[in-house]
Parts: sequence; C-alpha cells; structure tokens
Amino acid sequence: MQYQLDKDLALRERAATAFPAGIYGHMSTTPLPQNYPQFIEKADGGRIWGYDGFEYIDLLCAYGPNILGYKHPKVEEAVRRQMALGDCTTGPSAIMVELAEKMIDNGQHADWSLFCKNGSDATTICLMIARAQTGRNKILMAQGTYHGVDPWCNWSRVGIPDEAKANLITFKYNDSASLEEAATLAGDDLAGIIVTPNLHEVFVTQELATAEFAKKVRSLCDKKGAALILDDVRCSYRFSLGSTWETLGVLPDLCAMGKTLANGYALSAVTGGDAFRDGAAKSFTTGSYWFSSVAFAAALATIEAIEAEDAISRMHAAGTKLREGLAQQANSYGFTLHQSGPVQMPLFLFDGDPEFRLGQAFCNEAMKAGVYLHPVHNMFICAAHDKDIAEALQRTELAFEAVKKQFGTAA
Amino acid sequence: MQYQLDKDLALRERAATAFPAGIYGHMSTTPLPQNYPQFIEKADGGRIWGYDGFEYIDLLCAYGPNILGYKHPKVEEAVRRQMALGDCTTGPSAIMVELAEKMIDNGQHADWSLFCKNGSDATTICLMIARAQTGRNKILMAQGTYHGVDPWCNWSRVGIPDEAKANLITFKYNDSASLEEAATLAGDDLAGIIVTPNLHEVFVTQELATAEFAKKVRSLCDKKGAALILDDVRCSYRFSLGSTWETLGVLPDLCAMGKTLANGYALSAVTGGDAFRDGAAKSFTTGSYWFSSVAFAAALATIEAIEAEDAISRMHAAGTKLREGLAQQANSYGFTLHQSGPVQMPLFLFDGDPEFRLGQAFCNEAMKAGVYLHPVHNMFICAAHDKDIAEALQRTELAFEAVKKQFGTAA
Repeated sequence: MQYQLDKDLALRERAATAFPAGIYGHMSTTPLPQNYPQFIEKADGGRIWGYDGFEYIDLLCAYGPNILGYKHPKVEEAVRRQMALGDCTTGPSAIMVELAEKMIDNGQHADWSLFCKNGSDATTICLMIARAQTGRNKILMAQGTYHGVDPWCNWSRVGIPDEAKANLITFKYNDSASLEEAATLAGDDLAGIIVTPNLHEVFVTQELATAEFAKKVRSLCDKKGAALILDDVRCSYRFSLGSTWETLGVLPDLCAMGKTLANGYALSAVTGGDAFRDGAAKSFTTGSYWFSSVAFAAALATIEAIEAEDAISRMHAAGTKLREGLAQQANSYGFTLHQSGPVQMPLFLFDGDPEFRLGQAFCNEAMKAGVYLHPVHNMFICAAHDKDIAEALQRTELAFEAVKKQFGTAA
Repeated sequence: MQYQLDKDLALRERAATAFPAGIYGHMSTTPLPQNYPQFIEKADGGRIWGYDGFEYIDLLCAYGPNILGYKHPKVEEAVRRQMALGDCTTGPSAIMVELAEKMIDNGQHADWSLFCKNGSDATTICLMIARAQTGRNKILMAQGTYHGVDPWCNWSRVGIPDEAKANLITFKYNDSASLEEAATLAGDDLAGIIVTPNLHEVFVTQELATAEFAKKVRSLCDKKGAALILDDVRCSYRFSLGSTWETLGVLPDLCAMGKTLANGYALSAVTGGDAFRDGAAKSFTTGSYWFSSVAFAAALATIEAIEAEDAISRMHAAGTKLREGLAQQANSYGFTLHQSGPVQMPLFLFDGDPEFRLGQAFCNEAMKAGVYLHPVHNMFICAAHDKDIAEALQRTELAFEAVKKQFGTAA
C-alpha cells in the first residue's frame, strides 16, 4: 500500500474552516513534514493508527500522557468501575481523598495535594500559593522555559498585555551565578523560583539539571524564605512517584504535576509541604470538572500499575535500547546523532544540521516506515514500548537508508 | 434511619489533612449547614447518594455540568464507543472536527470553534483573541461577576499581584449609562466587553439581562470595533444550542462555553465569528488534554440528546413546576420567597432574611428530607428532573413544616 494520507488531508481541509487555522497548539502538524498524519483514529499500547490505515509506533505518547500504554487494562477497568458510580457530581467521591493520600505517601516533599485539570492550572496555582504564603510578588524562572499557556507564561506576546508578565525575572538554567543575580534583582520581594527538572525546550539540546544547580535553587529559597516550585508537569512519573529532583536529593516546596498522572485522563495536581499549607488554604481556586472521580480512579490505577509493573525501569530500559540502537544505525550510515535528555524523554538532533533539514527528512521517512518521531521536540517513552523498540529500530533503519540516498554520507 | 453523616464526617477529617483545608473551591460544603454531605458516592439521573446511605434529589447538578441526567445512556454509550478507539493520543480524532462543525451549525454567531478544559480557559482565551484582533488592551466587565479563577478574574486578591487585574474597567450590569461611562474611560484602547447572559452571582437576587442592555452592549462593540464576549459558561445549553442571547436577538463575537457541553465530561469551548478569526489564528493556546476524544464524543451525544429529547423545554417545564410549587408551599406556611433567575437556573431567598438564617435552616431541613438545594447560589435543573420535581416538592413540604416550627410564621 502506497503511503498516502488522502483521508487525513480531507479532514485537515474541514479543520481549516472549523477551527481558526486548523488544529492548534502542540497538536498541530502544520510545522511538521508532509508524512505526519494530523488525525489519529485509534490507539493501543505503544501504537497509533491514522485514518488512512497506517500504523505507527508512537514515540510521542500524546506528548506525555500515555505512560503505561494506551488503554492499559487495569486503568480502563478502574475507569469503568468508577463510571458506573459517577464522575462529575455535586461533591467529590472518597476516591479524591484516597488519591491525595497516596500522592502524599509517595512524595517526600508532600503534606497535602490539590487537583486541577491543565498543567497551566498547576503552575499558576503554585505561583499564587507562593505569593499568598510569602506576601511577596517576584518569581524567578529560567529563560525561555515552557510553564504552560496562561498569560504570565505563554511564550507568545500576541493578545497578552505586558502587565501579565510583570514580576517575573529570568535566569539561565543550570547557571548558579545567573540565578544569584536574578535573586538579587528580586531583593526582599522574592516569592518563589519556578524551575523544570531538566531543560527540555524545543529546537535545542536537552540539559539535565546538575546536582549543584538544584542544590543552589534549594539553598537560595531557604535563605530567602521563598518557594522552590518544581514544574514537574512533563516529567514526574517517568522518573519518580514523588518529585523528579528526589533523585538529586532536592525537594520542592510546591510541585506542579500533570501529564503523567492518569495515563491520559485529564488531571493535574499541586503537591506541597506544610510550610506552604496556609498560603494554599487561603488561595481561592476551583474548576467545573476538577472534582470528577473518573480521572482520580485512573490516577490511582496508574500509580498502582507503575509500581506493580516496574514501569519506570521498563521505560528507562526501552529508552536506553532506542538511544543505543539509533546511535549505532546513524554511525553505520555515516551520520552523527546528538542525543540528549533523559532516555525516557529523548531528543535527537543530527550533528551539522542547523536548519533541521536532515532531521525533518529523517522523521518524514520514519513516518512512512511506521515510527512517529519528532524532529525538534522531546519524545516520550511509555512502559508498553518495551515490546516495540526492536521493531521501531527496524523501521528507523529504513529511514536512515532513505536519507542516506537523499543526503549522501553527511548533510 | 436517623439522619447522621458519620462516614461523611470521617472522610472530611481525612480531607482536612490531605488537602490544604479540606475540599476546596465551589465544592466545599464548609460554608453550608451541617446536613450537607461533603462527599457523594454515586449519581443517577437527577439524584445523588452520599456515603451514609441517604439519597438526594440533586438540584445543583454538579453546579451545572449535569444537564441531561447523570449517566445518560446515549452519552455513556458514545463514551464507551470512543474509549474503545482512543482518548488522549498523539493527534485528535475526526470527532473533534465533527463536534466543531455541529457547534458552528448550531450557533448563529459561530464560524469557528476552539476546545479547552476549564471555563476559565475559555474566558481567558476570549480576552486574548479580542486583544490579538484589535491590538488593544482594555476589557470591560460587570462589577463582581464571576468569570473563572485565572488571575485576571479571580474574585480573591490573595496571592495575585495587582498587575494581573490591569486593563479591566467595571460597569454595572443592566445599566447602559454605566456601560457607556466605562467605555469612555477605555477611550481608543477598548478590546472587548465580557458579560454573562444573566447576572447570576451568589447572595443576591438574579437579574435577567434586559433586551435594551444586551443591544446596547452590541451597538457599543460595533461602534468601537471591540469584541462582544459572552461568558456563556454557566448558561448555554440550558437555554440555547447557539448562544444564550440569541433569544434577545443579540449575537456575540466570541462565546465562552463550558459546563453544559458534555453532560459532565470535561470540556469547554470558544466559538466565534469570522471577524475575529485572524485574532484567534495568531493567538497561541493549548493544553495536555484539550484534544482528547472521549469528551468530544460525549459532547456530540449531548447535543443530539438535547435535540432529540426536547431537553431545553423539559428543563423549563420542570423549573417552572418547582418555582410554582415552592411559592405555593411558602405561602401556605406564611413565608414569602423571592425567586429569581431563569427557571432552569433558579435561586430562591426568603423575604426578610438578610442574614440567610431562615434560608440556611430551610435548606438544612430539606437535606434531611432528601433534596439538595442551595441557600445562596443559583441551582441547576436537568432534563431528568421532570421525573423528580413532584417528589422534591413533597420533601420541601417537610422542610417548610420544620422551619415553621423553629421560626414561627415569618422570620
């Protein structure tokens, strides 16, 4: 069957009218090469299917939420059980308390929990709590890091008044001197420092936080009485059921969590320590669907499955196998890959490819061969991928072969 | 069985530790009388059950989302069908386009649609689009109206820097002169006017928008080239499948929708006209779960069921029956009720009860008799309530009897 996306293109045409400019946000395939389907008809385990009948090993995992594998039986069973009782009703179910207690047990930093829906809800609530607790306004954040789309953190300035970005001071990630300087600028008005566990921005090499830097953030917050806010929305359960910097021995005061919590069911959360409980208690926040029980049931089942099925180690092993396999293949075709980020959230860029032409061509060929990769955004491994990586590498082999023909030995 | 909430109280005690100060936001029963259960175990049609075995006719409907009746078979069937395919995957399903097209067909004002998760997402996106399209900053909003919890609209100032509230100018609802004054203050920097279809704030008599006022908002926006933003998050499908002011002959440029869309599944939306398409196209927004298919399937099935089952008329009829029955009962016990708001979103306050003591006592007794009312927040009728109102009135009769004993003829 020739690789053609006729049905997908017809759907895109309808979407161009039904939405302001087609599918939007991080799900838009407009910036991606032509072989990327915009629409996905079904999903199972580590794989997805488009409307034109092609199957892909999906190394994006819905940009994070798929952590165990799509339609994980234990999660789906818990969901169906809860659906039979109720979901969004006039009061939460006891399962909301059970989940909060479980997350408090799991997080060394956590004495309480708050649930919400978007990653942006969680990061915005963290800022509110830090300010409510300290009575101060200034927040330090790393240059260019993504913390969501609320006006204060949206990377775009279009439609956003300048005042929304007030009280933010930026520093350079992994640079303690730059962090110190930013803190000096904040003076005695420092409410908190928000930071991602690793630097995982698009187009650039991913950077793991150094232990020295993480400890510097912690000691600065301690010295100033400010909140260490870990934006763990993208990382969390791919690394730890507590908070990602636990592995570096650094605990946050407030932790924003999201994508990884409920295997795709809509849930985000803030967990925090008792030192910030008062600030959280006097901050007002709520949402129409924040108390819905099905997402809590999914999250509890997800935590249990991660524990029971050793999911974190399996993601690590699958990610390592992918990284090693890609390096070997690239090498055998005369290319050099620069692979970065933790193996569970990998990014690879071709060396000597500043405009990503080679990367785009490679990913385009890989799609045709049936692997969904991303040329400039970090990817995500799920636990179900341990059954898929060998086949994924067979498929990327075809992509290397094809770009070798197009580009010669090196770009 | 004596009315006691032992299990509920035990859960509340755990919640007091697991959350900063127990269950939060609009779902907190802390400000409500003692007979209100904080936790709900199951829901069906127009009824809910607490953990101590008591059943309630639920006139809150999850504060809006339950519009057809909990676990409506057609909605649940559509959900199960979509779950078998996929929910949150690496790309939306075609059902996202289908739903957008349906909403565009239904809304006289709508040429395009955008989906999100919270009501606050939708109102905040409307402001962003209005500003992106006009290149201006100022937004007019009615004094004290609820538009969500994002920093710009959160009613609380705790933890929110003053700058978040910049560029907002308030006017008095249903007061065209006050609106004119606010517009004059905005000068040539007016991006939009955000307004709810009715005034439905807590503690006060609900006010229906007058046609004169709605038309004034429209003509002012036309004159100034500003966006009429209808915050229809709370109303929408209880009144119209388009936008609520259609019944007054007034169409918005941008319409924020939420609670009523998907019978409890987490979904909100912005629908808008072509005059604001460019502004929407160049605004950046997205969310981890905004492209999930199950909520779209639920929304499509909800629209179909509203149409097929004449749900809007049935909610109107049930609300009318409740209003008339309550008035008659109050009268026969020597009380006067001030009932306000549209019958599908009713509020009743006791006359001569400025501190709501009588209202609280009445609602507390009603809970014991098995009706979930609210003393100061508007309630919500769902279509399934047409089977429940007669019984609800038998139960409120008991509550009137009890408060008559406590308070004498009138408070």
